[in-house]
Amino acid sequence: MKFFEDIAIGERADLGSHTFTADDIKTFARRYDPQPFHLDEAAAARSHFGALCASGWHTAATWMRLMVEHQVREDAARRARGEAVATLGPSPGFRELKWLKPVYAGDTVKYSTEIIDKRASGSRPGWGIMSIHNTGVNQKGEPVISFISVAFVQRRH
Amino acid sequence: MKFFEDIAIGERADLGSHTFTADDIKTFARRYDPQPFHLDEAAAARSHFGALCASGWHTAATWMRLMVEHQVREDAARRARGEAVATLGPSPGFRELKWLKPVYAGDTVKYSTEIIDKRASGSRPGWGIMSIHNTGVNQKGEPVISFISVAFVQRRH
Repeated sequence: MKFFEDIAIGERADLGSHTFTADDIKTFARRYDPQPFHLDEAAAARSHFGALCASGWHTAATWMRLMVEHQVREDAARRARGEAVATLGPSPGFRELKWLKPVYAGDTVKYSTEIIDKRASGSRPGWGIMSIHNTGVNQKGEPVISFISVAFVQRRH
Repeated sequence: MKFFEDIAIGERADLGSHTFTADDIKTFARRYDPQPFHLDEAAAARSHFGALCASGWHTAATWMRLMVEHQVREDAARRARGEAVATLGPSPGFRELKWLKPVYAGDTVKYSTEIIDKRASGSRPGWGIMSIHNTGVNQKGEPVISFISVAFVQRRH
């Protein structure tokens, strides 16, 4: 992670993309969201979605994995350049999560982030807080998920 | 699901509870949130969390599972009483998700819901929209998660 001081509002990053296969959708749904339209093609065809689609929590959790993998790659590149790496702290939460379109089996969602705010933490000296607008867009260019995450990030000492 | 007309603001429901085992925490984290403090006890002990704890998305996705299981039980009881069952529609999203305390390995989280708002849908005739305040509380009585979800629910015809 970059240090708080080095993060600029408006900075964007591409996190990469994920293809939601039918197996992938059903595996998540069996454990965390066992509704018929996430578990079974025939039941999904009869539902308001019209076809098998991913749990919204699956679309959100996949953002988290791509975000973590992105940070691991970025931190490795920083270390390779001999730069110090900041610690990404806990997240107090999220706001305004919108599931804008269903994510159907076979859809590929590309996730990206934009820093929309940063401020020093009042309660935790040595830390800043950044707000990030996160989006996922499918292969047709349609936004499928949007939310604002908040996370603590280390300040330079 | 109850029909829109039968839902009262202020109505509460207990969804049941879930114990987050170390295995459970690591299985979710490997797929969706591979950060060291969700994957490995020793790395977690060195982190700001101090011990292995669940991904916040895992705590949220577990709410979803208990919510679905609760609706399945309630609908079965309605059918057994000869009552009509309403369809729960898609969720446009949620807001103000707060992870208030870490959920550590071995913690048991009890989830509950409260209807805080309902209104007819302008865009979808035949449907209403309800807002639900969802909370999870650990075995010490400490809130660990809180968020407001929004969902479409069928109106009586």
